[in-house]
Amino acid sequence: MAITKRSEDYSQWYLDIIKDAKLADYSPVKGCMIIRPNGFAIWERMQRTLDEMFKQTGHVNAYFPLFIPKSYLSKEAEHVEHFAKECAIVTHYRLKASEDGTLVVDDDARLEEELVIRPTSETIIWSAYKSWIQSYRDLPVLINQWANVVRWEMRTRLFLRTAEFLWQEGHTAHRTYEEAEEEALLILGIYKKFAEDFMAMPVYSGLKSESEKFAGADHTYTIEGMMQDKKALQAGTSHHLGQNFAKAFDVKFQDIDGEQKYVWATSWGASTRLMGALIMTHSDDKGLVLPPKIAPRLVNIVPIWRTDDEKPAVLEFSAKLSAKLHDGGISTNVDDRDDRSPGWKFNESELNAFLLRVKVAPKEAAGGTVVISRRDTRTKETVSFEEVPAKAQSLLTDIQTNLSQRAREFRDSNTFDVRTYDELVDTIKSNSGFARAFWNGTPEDEAKLKEIQASVRCLLPNEEGSTGKCIVTGKETPTRAIIGKSY
Amino acid sequence: MAITKRSEDYSQWYLDIIKDAKLADYSPVKGCMIIRPNGFAIWERMQRTLDEMFKQTGHVNAYFPLFIPKSYLSKEAEHVEHFAKECAIVTHYRLKASEDGTLVVDDDARLEEELVIRPTSETIIWSAYKSWIQSYRDLPVLINQWANVVRWEMRTRLFLRTAEFLWQEGHTAHRTYEEAEEEALLILGIYKKFAEDFMAMPVYSGLKSESEKFAGADHTYTIEGMMQDKKALQAGTSHHLGQNFAKAFDVKFQDIDGEQKYVWATSWGASTRLMGALIMTHSDDKGLVLPPKIAPRLVNIVPIWRTDDEKPAVLEFSAKLSAKLHDGGISTNVDDRDDRSPGWKFNESELNAFLLRVKVAPKEAAGGTVVISRRDTRTKETVSFEEVPAKAQSLLTDIQTNLSQRAREFRDSNTFDVRTYDELVDTIKSNSGFARAFWNGTPEDEAKLKEIQASVRCLLPNEEGSTGKCIVTGKETPTRAIIGKSY
Repeated sequence: MAITKRSEDYSQWYLDIIKDAKLADYSPVKGCMIIRPNGFAIWERMQRTLDEMFKQTGHVNAYFPLFIPKSYLSKEAEHVEHFAKECAIVTHYRLKASEDGTLVVDDDARLEEELVIRPTSETIIWSAYKSWIQSYRDLPVLINQWANVVRWEMRTRLFLRTAEFLWQEGHTAHRTYEEAEEEALLILGIYKKFAEDFMAMPVYSGLKSESEKFAGADHTYTIEGMMQDKKALQAGTSHHLGQNFAKAFDVKFQDIDGEQKYVWATSWGASTRLMGALIMTHSDDKGLVLPPKIAPRLVNIVPIWRTDDEKPAVLEFSAKLSAKLHDGGISTNVDDRDDRSPGWKFNESELNAFLLRVKVAPKEAAGGTVVISRRDTRTKETVSFEEVPAKAQSLLTDIQTNLSQRAREFRDSNTFDVRTYDELVDTIKSNSGFARAFWNGTPEDEAKLKEIQASVRCLLPNEEGSTGKCIVTGKETPTRAIIGKSY
Repeated sequence: MAITKRSEDYSQWYLDIIKDAKLADYSPVKGCMIIRPNGFAIWERMQRTLDEMFKQTGHVNAYFPLFIPKSYLSKEAEHVEHFAKECAIVTHYRLKASEDGTLVVDDDARLEEELVIRPTSETIIWSAYKSWIQSYRDLPVLINQWANVVRWEMRTRLFLRTAEFLWQEGHTAHRTYEEAEEEALLILGIYKKFAEDFMAMPVYSGLKSESEKFAGADHTYTIEGMMQDKKALQAGTSHHLGQNFAKAFDVKFQDIDGEQKYVWATSWGASTRLMGALIMTHSDDKGLVLPPKIAPRLVNIVPIWRTDDEKPAVLEFSAKLSAKLHDGGISTNVDDRDDRSPGWKFNESELNAFLLRVKVAPKEAAGGTVVISRRDTRTKETVSFEEVPAKAQSLLTDIQTNLSQRAREFRDSNTFDVRTYDELVDTIKSNSGFARAFWNGTPEDEAKLKEIQASVRCLLPNEEGSTGKCIVTGKETPTRAIIGKSY
């Protein structure tokens, strides 16, 4: 199947990539996705990497229930206000056969209190922390969980917005405001490092504005990437929850000074949305492109022969080459299928997102050389058998760097400093990308951005201490905002 | 807190172990558990090990939706008959504020078709396989998923029987009956190897009887362990599904001969029940005992000092010892807390299931020796600083072997060959353990076993080809059954 060009229909291109690379499918349940083995292999690598980063910074994993009693959700006012509108609700615990033999809900098995499928787990987790935390000795609690969550979305899109999605959610408890702040920033740093070093996706990071922060947070930090259609994608958020959930669930501890105090909290999450970000940051009109540090498949060896006489030699050469690469720590695939043409195999190599394709042809193999094509630049070179492992390793390193640079240049060249509201409107309306502007607008000013389908994506930290005039209020402010359209 | 003795109250002993070792908690949702970090660390190690075994045999991971449309569950008759009675049902997708301000289910947001929270995923997965499988070239499909599932249980018990639990479920599709049979047996072998080599838990393995097989299977294989109260615990099952689900979801493939045929299937699962099995196989009246291959914590170094003068030397010695063990690849903890007594720390060491405790006391440390206590036999020996890493390694190997042997001796000495039904009844009623008997009884005969709270746990493969008289029918049969009480 031909992939739709980005320039023709960006949304369709995205779906075509996912379909052709067999990453995911819609399921019969509206808005729920199936993550296929090719997609899940990528997610597993992301999980493994993030999990190690969390563990290296002292976090441990746990697992809390899928179900949240309705009354728990209600305990934090902003939180319930936001999530009540989009949650799946369990009301019964049994089906039965009706008189006509069809299966119906058994009304005798109605729950006394309805259960909400977790849209996020602050409430169920803080109800547990109440019994776990009594003293400053019990702090900090540094827990993460990998879980599925459900937010009933009406307009869904594979990986980017689905009713059920997979994520990790960290929930930490601390003795002081400052310690919680340090934690929230530590995690923001981990998300940024993961996005930039592993996913090769540059991100802006900073605070969310009041209107965009997490429902129940004191403040929220975010990382925001730019996709190839120049829209922003929020790729991870880290929340300082203040004492909001501690107060809602009455979680106090006896401090060193003997006094009873409410606990300070953070929560933070990154989800299978990252899959969407990864796909949209690097892929091209030929298919999926993945950075080597995340790619499950690296090298595809494609032996080519026209006659049966030529076959044994190229297959033997290919097997030797594969063994040599394995010895060098590089996993390979040899596509030695009899019943497929070279053209079909080359295409398949791209669909499966191999980063290097090694062509083993009769004449070259006899002379001890192969042709290596790299996926990102689509350039080729002839390499001798002995040099292949070192060459493959250096090409993979190059690809990681190249993808990262390419994405950074794209993002930077599509981010514009604007000094007036009119300039902002022009930038957004012309789909030029992100606008960067001094900003201390109110939530009402932010709401007005909806008229141009834009929003404040994040408030950048001001490292130099410079100030400028806010593009809406005209007042001097040290804060600059990244404003753009978003997913 | 003192742990209840096994001899006094076995059930309470089990719950005390879980509580003291902080493995799990009940949650506010009836029957749902919280797996605490100490428990989850063990589960993660089990997951990692099993996952590698699946991958080494060609399986890949994927993820299918949590929700199953009610009509899908109904498509396989035996399957729905079994699971309809115990499933959580989502009927609405929104909450709203009522007139008095409380949160209620929004009747305007009723689902057209109710969704069942997966109790197992055959139906949702086979509906996907219908679009993935067209030709023999698409076979085999060897997919596994790690997921949460829900079966509404009225009487729950941490890890052993909870409304929500974590598990892996494999779902494979094959060209022939024989290939599916090979797969079902391959997985049975993996489960057995994992139980015996990693969990140090000997298991009987074989077929389930007709009445105990999985709802929707052609036949089911099982592994069954014996707990310390001599009850059986089913620790993993592998099902040959025949063509039942392929027919229910109309999944056909074009075979090599050009004909359209229904696909053959297997499914197989192991769950957080394994945590219960692990706890009950090895722990004692002092607390949790884990086999070294699964234990997250191995060596606890406890420095002891009475005066402040003695402190620096024992702490320095402990730090050096810890570094030396780390260099030898053995992870350690140094319990250098100021404000706890040695007795408290020794107790804590047992609660945290450390396998080796290394006491660093002033006099011995000055002489370059420590005292190592092993958890299983509670024996001690004095070891010189230089010898500690090698000694620790050999002790850990010994502990794995010892736990395995101890469990096997317990199981074997509590399994009795019985030749008559009366002997069977005596064995079961006296709580002597498992009865092994020639058996070709009917499902009605099996049902009668309920009178003595027993069931056929598994039908042993007959390797020698010998036969004997069935204890109910008196007919000659090659099949022997393991019969016992069970969890």
